[in-house]
Amino acid sequence: MGNADGLTSTDIFHAFDAATGQPIEPGFAEATAAEIDAAAVRSAEAAEWLAHSPPARRAELLERVAQGMDARQDEIVQRCVTETGYLPERVIGEFRRASGQLRAFAGLTRDRYWDQRQIAAADPNRELAPGLVVPRPEMRRRLVPVGPVAVFGACNFPLAISVVGNDFVAAIAVGCPVIVKSHPSHPGTCELLGQVVCEAVEQLGMPAGTFSLLHGRRPETSISLVQHPAIAAVGFTGSPVGGRALAEAVLKRDRPIPIFAELGSTNPVFITAAALEERCEVIAKGFADSLRFGNGHMCTKPGVVVVPKDVSQPFVDQVIGEMSKQTPLPLLSGGVAEAFDRGIANYRSAAEVQTLHQGGSGGAERDESLGPWHRGPHWFAVEASAAMENHDVHRGSLLHSETFGPVSLLVRCCDEEEMLTIAKQFHGSLTTTLHRGSTDDGFVERWLPIAERFAGRIIYNGWPTGMEIGPATQHGGPYPASLDGNSTSVGYESLRRFVRPVCYQNWPAEELDAAGPW
Amino acid sequence: MGNADGLTSTDIFHAFDAATGQPIEPGFAEATAAEIDAAAVRSAEAAEWLAHSPPARRAELLERVAQGMDARQDEIVQRCVTETGYLPERVIGEFRRASGQLRAFAGLTRDRYWDQRQIAAADPNRELAPGLVVPRPEMRRRLVPVGPVAVFGACNFPLAISVVGNDFVAAIAVGCPVIVKSHPSHPGTCELLGQVVCEAVEQLGMPAGTFSLLHGRRPETSISLVQHPAIAAVGFTGSPVGGRALAEAVLKRDRPIPIFAELGSTNPVFITAAALEERCEVIAKGFADSLRFGNGHMCTKPGVVVVPKDVSQPFVDQVIGEMSKQTPLPLLSGGVAEAFDRGIANYRSAAEVQTLHQGGSGGAERDESLGPWHRGPHWFAVEASAAMENHDVHRGSLLHSETFGPVSLLVRCCDEEEMLTIAKQFHGSLTTTLHRGSTDDGFVERWLPIAERFAGRIIYNGWPTGMEIGPATQHGGPYPASLDGNSTSVGYESLRRFVRPVCYQNWPAEELDAAGPW
Repeated sequence: MGNADGLTSTDIFHAFDAATGQPIEPGFAEATAAEIDAAAVRSAEAAEWLAHSPPARRAELLERVAQGMDARQDEIVQRCVTETGYLPERVIGEFRRASGQLRAFAGLTRDRYWDQRQIAAADPNRELAPGLVVPRPEMRRRLVPVGPVAVFGACNFPLAISVVGNDFVAAIAVGCPVIVKSHPSHPGTCELLGQVVCEAVEQLGMPAGTFSLLHGRRPETSISLVQHPAIAAVGFTGSPVGGRALAEAVLKRDRPIPIFAELGSTNPVFITAAALEERCEVIAKGFADSLRFGNGHMCTKPGVVVVPKDVSQPFVDQVIGEMSKQTPLPLLSGGVAEAFDRGIANYRSAAEVQTLHQGGSGGAERDESLGPWHRGPHWFAVEASAAMENHDVHRGSLLHSETFGPVSLLVRCCDEEEMLTIAKQFHGSLTTTLHRGSTDDGFVERWLPIAERFAGRIIYNGWPTGMEIGPATQHGGPYPASLDGNSTSVGYESLRRFVRPVCYQNWPAEELDAAGPW
Repeated sequence: MGNADGLTSTDIFHAFDAATGQPIEPGFAEATAAEIDAAAVRSAEAAEWLAHSPPARRAELLERVAQGMDARQDEIVQRCVTETGYLPERVIGEFRRASGQLRAFAGLTRDRYWDQRQIAAADPNRELAPGLVVPRPEMRRRLVPVGPVAVFGACNFPLAISVVGNDFVAAIAVGCPVIVKSHPSHPGTCELLGQVVCEAVEQLGMPAGTFSLLHGRRPETSISLVQHPAIAAVGFTGSPVGGRALAEAVLKRDRPIPIFAELGSTNPVFITAAALEERCEVIAKGFADSLRFGNGHMCTKPGVVVVPKDVSQPFVDQVIGEMSKQTPLPLLSGGVAEAFDRGIANYRSAAEVQTLHQGGSGGAERDESLGPWHRGPHWFAVEASAAMENHDVHRGSLLHSETFGPVSLLVRCCDEEEMLTIAKQFHGSLTTTLHRGSTDDGFVERWLPIAERFAGRIIYNGWPTGMEIGPATQHGGPYPASLDGNSTSVGYESLRRFVRPVCYQNWPAEELDAAGPW
């Protein structure tokens, strides 16, 4: 089936088994312009219904999707393991996170968690100036759903940040229909989840346009979707390059719309001398485990660790000991593997960078017998002064280069003063972490205000991977953490993204009853 | 003084007396690249101090600015009247609004109105699955200032949406420094207000970078400012063309930042047959007054009025009667006058548009003796069916074309059904208004959900001009009302624009004391 944009339904692509690098069945058809248009039009029709649907109906949908997932857990987990190369326990953990998120947001939907309202009372006798009476009308403000939301999930979270993930639950909760563009590296997982949602929508008798799934790997497909006039907002998780391309496409619309994009960061971890003296082994083990989690594919991966160098050797030795025990695991896709190798090569080619560890099957030591995309942990080191001077190594500087996969950079500082100077170099990160000991109070007080300038989440004596979903969650921050800088893509406050305020001036309360109780 | 961008301090421009079209002294120098850089660097230094300053200090600044304005009221009002051509009472009204806004936001600053916090308690025994205990850390979330804000005020509100206006009060309240680029059509008013702020900053011993004023009329000057790495957010009020150009410049930064832009709309007013039967004269007078207010320069001007045509003739006659009494007033500038004449010419050239009234000194009837930019009220009419078909007349369609100045379009509908069909054509507006009578309940229930889809403020039996500043105010909405669609540029909730959330994970409460009480 041809169309004006040159897309044809014969554009079939396949997912790959991450462990072997081989394509797997079935094939998925690139969405055509006609299919994108049909989905958007259906979505706009559903938007009217959803905007005025009882929250309990939408909560039921989220719960029904969770039940549908549970019923097909083995099938979904198996496909996800194959497409991502993640360890089964990692996928089962994310499965639980995704179904828990669906159920938690069902509760928020019933409670109208996002539904903040303000009333400014009328004042018929208001005096603007002595003798100048100008009555003040009553004004009421509430939040309404924005309309159809286009969702682009992350390559690294096929369950919790994808078809039924964070953007889906936030949009459905507030009353917006969703069109998901599946991720081309796990279309099979997306398809199974999409079937679960479509079945739930049908069983509950909701409009078909409540949810649509489109497949595609071409940038033009994503751009057509976000430029469709019926789309009212975009939720995106992915790379800075991808997020910026979509933002540019959105700005070229006749009528631009909000785009919420979470783009990642290097999540610097600062470890004080006192912390290393008191808990070196625990911290080393914690770091190695955090970097290993999801084989370094977390957007909250500790990509930079900052230490005082004169006391850091035992830490380095212990981390290397931990890393040596870690067997190589597959990266998510051929593209991720290429980017990883490029990142490693960049570190190696920088004269100021020292290699601390390179795990099996990575770079020069690549052992193809495991699989083409298997890579073990890699660790590099740089002096703080050199890290600050370096602005040439790949996109940006050493401190800001995010490379997906099991790789991190150790920044060695002369003293606490230099650690604070390094902290000031960061301009945007999803997280930053401080490990401190019992004797460095002065440092904490000086570090925290710097951390508040660049990070969305600030962790004390912990690790950034493994974020909680709750009322205080913040997953976003100054670019590149997120594009808009002041929203969160995960947690209860993520509901705010897909509503907008409406003020009712001088309306009799009884006329507004349909909007729910005031 | 030359510089790399080719800007030199010999680029001097003048404001104009709107009543005569003649340039007035003094000249203002286009800000050079070096001046922009110096202001931004100063601003970044001040940001650190302001972020941790006691709210009471910032409240004092806002109050001191209000007092400083009051002390120079005559001078400021006089210059503003000259530069805008507004009637003195209009300027005095806005003066009161601006100083009231400063004082109101001083109160909000003391109360930390924006400072919403959430705490998610720790749970050391949390079970993720039967037997799987994963302790949950405590998480706390609060809002921190984003940093230096670049502000671009509106041509039509030199006092309340300008140097000391809505963006200034919101940014200072939450702890962000401000750099204002003065509006080239009223630089003299901006300069006086800037002096007031600089004096207040100095008197209070705050960092000089707390506030800076730059002059300029070149697009490159504005673009250099928003692209400076030290700028953390942008507040803009102006045209869609200007707002989009700045948004594009922001997206081209190495690190994009949030931009909040209010761009205007046509603010459609719907009047039912019952309303016309019951209150024809009051509504006609109200409309003529609302259009006349500020000589049609309000962003909330009723630019489109939708009526059932079979009962609308008495309304039309009475409005024309009111308009006939209105003498021409100056438009804001030569540019606005040109755009107005172009808008009028477009209406006239459209075969489907009928001229209902054209006031003196406008278009063909221009009477140069009053002044080159004086224009009286103009009113045009179109059949609803033709309005929906028309997509060629200037930028977009008849229903969505905002022309600054005293001009409005009457849309004549066959019946209520067609009024609802017209309502569905609107895609974004700061306001919409319903005048209804005692016998049309069914219409209201069907109209309101449509209004909620496109408008930020929905007014009942009133007029959109003259908006209150309070907790329930909403001034923004889907494009072109605003660029992001879900913020407000006026009212208490406007404070949300210049903060971003930070989550503290596992932090001992005593370490967070500096952030204020939890």
